[in-house]
Amino acid sequence: LSFFNYLLTIQYKGTAYLGWQVQEKQGKTVQGELNKALRKISKSEEINSIASGRTDAGVHAFGQKCKVRIPLEIPAVNLIKALNSFLPDDIRIIEAENCEEAFHPIRDSLWKEYWYCFSTEESGAMSHEWMAHYSFELDFDQMQKACQLFVGSHDFCNFFCVGSETATTIREIFECELIQQKQQGQPFAQFSSDHWCFRVRGSGFLKQMVRLMVGVLWEVGRGKVTLEQLSDALINPCPNKLGAVAPACGLYLYKVTYPA
Amino acid sequence: LSFFNYLLTIQYKGTAYLGWQVQEKQGKTVQGELNKALRKISKSEEINSIASGRTDAGVHAFGQKCKVRIPLEIPAVNLIKALNSFLPDDIRIIEAENCEEAFHPIRDSLWKEYWYCFSTEESGAMSHEWMAHYSFELDFDQMQKACQLFVGSHDFCNFFCVGSETATTIREIFECELIQQKQQGQPFAQFSSDHWCFRVRGSGFLKQMVRLMVGVLWEVGRGKVTLEQLSDALINPCPNKLGAVAPACGLYLYKVTYPA
Repeated sequence: LSFFNYLLTIQYKGTAYLGWQVQEKQGKTVQGELNKALRKISKSEEINSIASGRTDAGVHAFGQKCKVRIPLEIPAVNLIKALNSFLPDDIRIIEAENCEEAFHPIRDSLWKEYWYCFSTEESGAMSHEWMAHYSFELDFDQMQKACQLFVGSHDFCNFFCVGSETATTIREIFECELIQQKQQGQPFAQFSSDHWCFRVRGSGFLKQMVRLMVGVLWEVGRGKVTLEQLSDALINPCPNKLGAVAPACGLYLYKVTYPA
Repeated sequence: LSFFNYLLTIQYKGTAYLGWQVQEKQGKTVQGELNKALRKISKSEEINSIASGRTDAGVHAFGQKCKVRIPLEIPAVNLIKALNSFLPDDIRIIEAENCEEAFHPIRDSLWKEYWYCFSTEESGAMSHEWMAHYSFELDFDQMQKACQLFVGSHDFCNFFCVGSETATTIREIFECELIQQKQQGQPFAQFSSDHWCFRVRGSGFLKQMVRLMVGVLWEVGRGKVTLEQLSDALINPCPNKLGAVAPACGLYLYKVTYPA
């Protein structure tokens, strides 16, 4: 068998999935669905897929990247069509290109960007799967300042779900901001109320790092955590987390980039 | 027991439901979920609910109206909170007010407005539950003219799902138009591609009437049905439907109004 490598851009609504990664325990995963489709189009069990990172249960992706290695040579446009015909509607391949055998989607990435959407207003029937609801009044100026504290190279050991393995907890954040979004589009759309998006671009992210960053921002917004406490937590390990893990439904893996 | 009447405004995402109406066959309905919540808050089986109309399986509502009669006197704001605490996240009570025993939500309505959203572009992973995909090139000018033919009082016997009972198939359409919508909001939002909305306001609607209107509009847009044929179908019964029933996922019961 000859093998061929492709880099896919994948969009998914994470609500129905246990996350990206194929798991031992019962339940659907995005990678599991992709692998099924890859086996069907290749008519082979000899397939392999590696994503730019594992998204957790319920987390969405606008532009997840995944390298696949299959015993099938096929033009990119046909690969997209063939995979989408076997994938469920909430997972779509939106781009595909050939890539080198040596290319590695985690190691070779330049940066990743996540968005986290939330509202302090009650979510309507259309938005509960798309953004988080935080019911306390928030000081957004203070939260915006907190965002700036994340920028730079820091040890994110306090923004990290223990139990996962990693060589280092140091990560670099390039951009971090809170964006106010006014009601958009049709009144019955998912983002039909005023809401906020936390946008963060960095070299890489630890398990649950973005959701722990949002959890702390909420505490800062409520006045329960000061900017000084947050600064400290970016230098010294804390005995306890400064905030909760924000709900998965608000999180989107927005973009992953590689050298041109 | 003393009974009290309330008029509720209900928002729901119809994807997970067999439609509004409680059914004999197994499966969840919006009314079934509402009735469960009404029984819980009233601590009684003696509850009753009547909507402004029955939406079909998979159809959404931004502003469904429903009269409920329960053996419980409660301020409107508390009624909303209590019901929402028992309802699933994809059904939300957004307004409530007291109403007369004699008020009837179907008979007393002045008009109803539906929206139908569709795109000729491939739907992404986020939009498949929210708008229909029609993959043919469409002549929107011609479709806009077709919309105007619907305005007025017509016998909609050709835009009606046979099998349902009704005293008359004559209905009056007050407004009918096609609205082009540019990409809105976040790129990962449900309406993130260019799309079209069919908006129709009328005295009342027959079973599947809006979806049959959209089905014909698509045929007009493709040049398979002429404006003359559509005009005829609004006067004379046809042996066959002029178009298919458009998919439920694109349809929203937008608003129902009553005399002030």
